[in-house]
Amino acid sequence: MIGPLRRWLPVASWAREYSRETLAGDLVAAAIVSIMLIPQSLAYALLVGLPPQVGLYASMAPLVLYAIFGTSRALAVGPVAVASLMTATAAAQVATQGSPEYLGAAIALAMLAGLLLVVMGALRLGFLANFLSHPVISGFITAAAVQIAAGQVGPLLGVKTHGESLVAILVSLVPALDRTHVATATIGVACIAFLLWARRGLGPLMLRLGTSERAADVVEKVGPAIAIAAATAAVWALGLGARGVPIVGEVPSGLPTPALPPFDATLWTKLAVPALLICIVGYVESISVALTLAAKRRQRVDPDQELIALGVADIGSAVSGGFPVTGALSRSVVSFDAGAQTPAAGAFTAVGVGLATLFLTPLLFHLPKAALAAIIIVAVLSLVDFGALRRTYAYSRADFAAMVGTILVTWAGGVEAGLLAGVAVSIFLHLYATSRPHVAVVGQIPGTTHFRNVARHAVVTDPEILSLRVDESLYFPNARFLEDLVNDAVAANPAVRHVILECPAVNTIDASALESLEAINHRLADGGIAFHLSEVKGPVMDRLKRSHFLQELSGRVHLSHFDAVASIKPDLARRTRNAPRGRVAGSSPVPNRVGSTQRRS
Amino acid sequence: MIGPLRRWLPVASWAREYSRETLAGDLVAAAIVSIMLIPQSLAYALLVGLPPQVGLYASMAPLVLYAIFGTSRALAVGPVAVASLMTATAAAQVATQGSPEYLGAAIALAMLAGLLLVVMGALRLGFLANFLSHPVISGFITAAAVQIAAGQVGPLLGVKTHGESLVAILVSLVPALDRTHVATATIGVACIAFLLWARRGLGPLMLRLGTSERAADVVEKVGPAIAIAAATAAVWALGLGARGVPIVGEVPSGLPTPALPPFDATLWTKLAVPALLICIVGYVESISVALTLAAKRRQRVDPDQELIALGVADIGSAVSGGFPVTGALSRSVVSFDAGAQTPAAGAFTAVGVGLATLFLTPLLFHLPKAALAAIIIVAVLSLVDFGALRRTYAYSRADFAAMVGTILVTWAGGVEAGLLAGVAVSIFLHLYATSRPHVAVVGQIPGTTHFRNVARHAVVTDPEILSLRVDESLYFPNARFLEDLVNDAVAANPAVRHVILECPAVNTIDASALESLEAINHRLADGGIAFHLSEVKGPVMDRLKRSHFLQELSGRVHLSHFDAVASIKPDLARRTRNAPRGRVAGSSPVPNRVGSTQRRS
Repeated sequence: MIGPLRRWLPVASWAREYSRETLAGDLVAAAIVSIMLIPQSLAYALLVGLPPQVGLYASMAPLVLYAIFGTSRALAVGPVAVASLMTATAAAQVATQGSPEYLGAAIALAMLAGLLLVVMGALRLGFLANFLSHPVISGFITAAAVQIAAGQVGPLLGVKTHGESLVAILVSLVPALDRTHVATATIGVACIAFLLWARRGLGPLMLRLGTSERAADVVEKVGPAIAIAAATAAVWALGLGARGVPIVGEVPSGLPTPALPPFDATLWTKLAVPALLICIVGYVESISVALTLAAKRRQRVDPDQELIALGVADIGSAVSGGFPVTGALSRSVVSFDAGAQTPAAGAFTAVGVGLATLFLTPLLFHLPKAALAAIIIVAVLSLVDFGALRRTYAYSRADFAAMVGTILVTWAGGVEAGLLAGVAVSIFLHLYATSRPHVAVVGQIPGTTHFRNVARHAVVTDPEILSLRVDESLYFPNARFLEDLVNDAVAANPAVRHVILECPAVNTIDASALESLEAINHRLADGGIAFHLSEVKGPVMDRLKRSHFLQELSGRVHLSHFDAVASIKPDLARRTRNAPRGRVAGSSPVPNRVGSTQRRS
Repeated sequence: MIGPLRRWLPVASWAREYSRETLAGDLVAAAIVSIMLIPQSLAYALLVGLPPQVGLYASMAPLVLYAIFGTSRALAVGPVAVASLMTATAAAQVATQGSPEYLGAAIALAMLAGLLLVVMGALRLGFLANFLSHPVISGFITAAAVQIAAGQVGPLLGVKTHGESLVAILVSLVPALDRTHVATATIGVACIAFLLWARRGLGPLMLRLGTSERAADVVEKVGPAIAIAAATAAVWALGLGARGVPIVGEVPSGLPTPALPPFDATLWTKLAVPALLICIVGYVESISVALTLAAKRRQRVDPDQELIALGVADIGSAVSGGFPVTGALSRSVVSFDAGAQTPAAGAFTAVGVGLATLFLTPLLFHLPKAALAAIIIVAVLSLVDFGALRRTYAYSRADFAAMVGTILVTWAGGVEAGLLAGVAVSIFLHLYATSRPHVAVVGQIPGTTHFRNVARHAVVTDPEILSLRVDESLYFPNARFLEDLVNDAVAANPAVRHVILECPAVNTIDASALESLEAINHRLADGGIAFHLSEVKGPVMDRLKRSHFLQELSGRVHLSHFDAVASIKPDLARRTRNAPRGRVAGSSPVPNRVGSTQRRS
């Protein structure tokens, strides 16, 4: 039984069962995730174009709030790469990076995205996320990851670049490469090399050095923290800050003061579409991670409640001066593997980040920005999946086209244009595909009651009967197609006196298709041809009964296609009387009374 | 056999069979249509906001060109009310009514619409017209007709009104009503009364006066010509022009000089979307009339060639200084009923209009504009069909919503906004409907091999087997729905060891749905549950074989749902061994070899 309290506050359902064992699992997971999250949150603040402490702010309140409202027991919420890039793009449209307005825009985006998510959750509008098809999301994430990596090459090498799209970034990056700052680039490249090695080589090395397997496993995850510590130490020891290596500098310590973002109707209007895209992309990624992890322990995730939980997390980020957050794939998996048992692990992670904000910020003064760029580059490279292009191409050309369109438009025109283009292409190609459905002229397999495509099977047809099977719902994109089809088929077969439409795959008939069926019926009647339907599904038939179509139909609606042919040519029935009487039935048979006497007056 | 000549020049297929009888029928039809068309063309020029002779220009070249390129033997091409309103709206966005730029914009719209139609015909893009669903077109025409009628109330009463939407027109009309010009209003209202009476009363009156039925029938159609003649005579005789009744005035006589419209990239860019909407709305209406009339004589209409023919007609209109044209419902029906046998009737009509342009224009000097307004109002009232709202509501709430949305947005925001809103709402509601497909948990009807919805039938289920039937194609709008569904169903039934998805109504599985099926398969496998499919259609199966899904599937693909259950629980098969073995078959059975041994390693 799920009461309203448990429904809206999932914390109520796990808090009372909280035990010492659960606590132990959650604490270990929180410790590891904190050590991952601190450098990542600083890096993603850099990616958005904000002071590093803003990343820390976005990694506290949201985690606590998700622990209260979220239904996934392992999701690690906080700043992520793609949402950070989208935030940077949107904020740059309304303010200059580095200005207070830019920070205000990022905070307003978090607030807007949060409010949109809460509204979507309350109104159960989660299906909106479905309009981002998987190839579009997949292509978008690959494109965004490449663009993020390209955007960090500048900070990594100590040169300035700018641009809201991959093309613009490359145009500003390539001519600047000869101004590479050697000391900065050395730190950056060394960090990348270490991080790539740490992923595969650090754990085994620790094992060889005699640590336990558990400890070796942990050390692997804390590569970024080690890289940051080493790079900061090197910059401090060698005095590289004074030699032009860009460093983080003064980071204010202390927790953020709760505040509301700027309420400015013009600003919010401009940020509405970007905020919607940020929250939908964030939600899609987050729910997919949550569902996958929940399935491993046969737990339940409520997609509508997840909208609310992520929305509240975003609002919490905004109120504490942070930018949009969502569920992070990499940290969630680490948290799950490390033994997180409840959302409390997220709250404990927030405590870890809070302690860092209170006590560690002085240590960040000498942190080179190139090290943060290296962390971002290595993190996003795992999101790049060009193999998906090949797999999608093999499976579906239409999905491949949507994917390629998304990638190319993202690179040429930026993240928002790319996503919107992907959605438009997916919808268009879907409508196009269903506008030309598969249609078969069918004939009877001799000696049986079965009807099959005349082009594929040896079947018997009657010159006076034209049997057509349409393998698609009939609705506006293909309504006129059906009219043309019947028009052409009848013009090409002057002997035809009966047209039968076999409908086992017709899941719906909308008003446009109904109008087309009525037009077909009247035109056929004008030419002295009767129009019949067969194997109409129950729900479709229920709806047809609410129109005048059945009264005006010149022919009849038949339970099975065999019945239709047999009622027109009774000798056919005699021919097959001794054949096995297994019937070709639609999944929802039409009630018997329909196929009776609805002849046209 | 249709050679390329006949394909691209349908005139070639009927010209050689042309006979004296065909000529007689065509000439009679052309005479009647000419007498209808001349007043209508003047009126529609007024509706667009152009000098009256432009209406005559749009009624010559297009008719001749359609006779050469068109495939309908009865379609009467020329100016029509709705396209004229759309032209006026679009031209007003780039120029002031009455200026040479305004005429240039109207001509450019005809050229653009023509070019777009030719391109659509050559590339076989006629399916684009399908995106205007029938309820949207129907609602749009009703809304546009009401708006046209409201817009003509000003000219009818001799007061000035303006506005691009019904709301704007009414706002300017209502306060102006007390400035009604009595003489003008008297002429206008008298014309309306006469025209309404002529439709029903003129024919019977002529019959009583002793004319032949044929003549009486003809006289009915020429009501507008009579009204114009009488109104002009009255204005001339009473000298009303000098008393402030707005009259047409000087109309230049002579045929138009061929010329090209202004080539101006900025102008053409601004007019591109309106031109696309004009050509699609015009095409949709035209093809529907053509198909209906062709069916009555079992003739063929080629929708792609119709695009080219209407496009060439529009280009012809532009080159001869006219505005966008299309096939007209009322005149086509009259031409058909009057015995038009070939497209030559249209060419003869053009000759009739040409003669009027050469010799009758001096007679138009005293023609009161109120009479033209009356002709427009009476003509468009026949397009208003509020009954369609009721019929659509009864049949489909989604279609009704699209229809109401189209009407309201057209009235509030104008024709372009209305059409685009209608298209957006139709597509959205379709995606929404398919995003929550009908799903049934199915069980076995005892003693048979049939499976039905557990909620509707007395069926047998097994606690270890969950059988789900989805009545919709699986694609991006419902992909995640399926994941949630299976996730919830399994969480609610802890005893389940097998999930079987019955797919007889699944016409396609796109890449998003494939990804969801893979996710479902892996998540179920993580929870120790096998995932099976049954009754997968041939084309869907062909495509699944191009992915890794079948190799990774933890369960199997079964030919029928009964086979699936029987292979999991052989005792079920024994229980029904003596039952009739009629199989529940999908429309395309899956090849036998699929359901064999693709168990997960």
